[in-house]
Amino acid sequence: MSARFERVAVVGVGLIGGSLALDLKAGGLAGAVVGVDTDPDNLELARELEVVDEVADLGEACASADLVVVAVPPARTAGVVLDAARASRPGTLVTDVASVKGPIVAGVGGALPEGVRFVPGHPVAGTEKSGAAAAMRNLFRGRRCILTPVDGTDGGALAAVRALWEGVGADVLEMPPDLHDLVCASISHLPHAAVYALTAAVGSFAERRPEIVGLGAGGFVDTTRIASSDPGMWSDIFALNRTHVLDALDGFLAQLGEMRALVADGDPERIRRYLERSRAVRARVLREG
Amino acid sequence: MSARFERVAVVGVGLIGGSLALDLKAGGLAGAVVGVDTDPDNLELARELEVVDEVADLGEACASADLVVVAVPPARTAGVVLDAARASRPGTLVTDVASVKGPIVAGVGGALPEGVRFVPGHPVAGTEKSGAAAAMRNLFRGRRCILTPVDGTDGGALAAVRALWEGVGADVLEMPPDLHDLVCASISHLPHAAVYALTAAVGSFAERRPEIVGLGAGGFVDTTRIASSDPGMWSDIFALNRTHVLDALDGFLAQLGEMRALVADGDPERIRRYLERSRAVRARVLREG
Repeated sequence: MSARFERVAVVGVGLIGGSLALDLKAGGLAGAVVGVDTDPDNLELARELEVVDEVADLGEACASADLVVVAVPPARTAGVVLDAARASRPGTLVTDVASVKGPIVAGVGGALPEGVRFVPGHPVAGTEKSGAAAAMRNLFRGRRCILTPVDGTDGGALAAVRALWEGVGADVLEMPPDLHDLVCASISHLPHAAVYALTAAVGSFAERRPEIVGLGAGGFVDTTRIASSDPGMWSDIFALNRTHVLDALDGFLAQLGEMRALVADGDPERIRRYLERSRAVRARVLREG
Repeated sequence: MSARFERVAVVGVGLIGGSLALDLKAGGLAGAVVGVDTDPDNLELARELEVVDEVADLGEACASADLVVVAVPPARTAGVVLDAARASRPGTLVTDVASVKGPIVAGVGGALPEGVRFVPGHPVAGTEKSGAAAAMRNLFRGRRCILTPVDGTDGGALAAVRALWEGVGADVLEMPPDLHDLVCASISHLPHAAVYALTAAVGSFAERRPEIVGLGAGGFVDTTRIASSDPGMWSDIFALNRTHVLDALDGFLAQLGEMRALVADGDPERIRRYLERSRAVRARVLREG
């Protein structure tokens, strides 16, 4: 199945929405991409940078679109999906990109108007940047995109959204919303939570010891890069995926406790074996498979 | 003061020793660089890749050098500094690059032979790679290099080692060995310990949920890059800098506890304020100052 839409409304022209818009335009996957954003400055920037072809308000954009991509912060996603669906013609396809799926699927629930089809999705890609200025080509190439259909999800709609993401180079896989949230809590939400806390710990130390300023070498810079991610988006994610994030944090606290005990014990050979295992695990987790 | 040495012995031609050798050769800072390594394959590779001009054993290399750079794993550094000093002529300058300074300064102590001068140093630079093949030009450019002179450190020797590191583009600063170890525990050793434990936590989850494999996006890749660092070197560092690393881990555990409480509480606004603070702190800590 090849993806080709006449008019795509991208609601929220940020890093994800904007990058998808760029790829849809460049790949000829959309006749026109219409941008919608609650921030007029960001929307104007999206038009100036030619991230989108046109701009409009939500109602106008959805009334003429055959595909609506909702790319707003997770806490607003379910509400905007419903607003978009209500403004759309029957037959319109609505999808989203939020990093948490269970609460969004539940929030949309059975409230969709007749004839509008919704497919929940999550392209697993991003940078620490946000806004239309952060949009880039090929952000999704070689990345996974997880679709989380439920019992009522229309098969044709699912195939069309799969084709959309495959059209921009993503590897599409499907899993139930709750499994998505469980898995992402570990591979994505936990690292973000850990790094925000790590940065806070180093910062709290720096207040007492200003000698530390400027000493962050490559390791610190790369490790804490994601602590520059959008706080508004990530606070939504942590709150929406609270239970799984807490479980993941507890798994991490257990590992840190083990590390602490090994360091306290001070046997380099036992510490080394722990680090060897961790290094091997990283290679295994990252293996495309 | 300009740095110019006739013969430099680099003992341990790994990432740090090899990169320094490359810069010394390219910058005309050394007449010849002689490589020494306990691993004959690595040493042969260093010669093949022209990381060093010549290779020799420790005694031979030190007997004709005016500068000896000891770049071996931290736990072996004090011993190799003493071996190198004993093999050197009076007047020879010996320095090291280990990431922990207190135990090395203590280990070398007053055991240096008459006339050989030792300056403890730590170029704050690196990658997760190791061995002669990882050596690269300009690794130290724009990075800090911390020298940790003690009461007996010769002023002329200190100035010469300062000129050496400035010659390869580093910003040199001086601090007492224990302050170095305290500061590095927070900005460098803690992030490594945290990331090794984070990777182990994700790996332990992946054993139960293989769906996670391949889902690591840019955030996970960058954040956990340093978990690919040399386990032998890092187990040495954690064990040698045990007390400060434990303190830093405890500061991190306190921050993680706060993060956990915020997530458990589930108020996105309070979580957001924590993330905002952490993001601001990162910018402050990284500021060159």
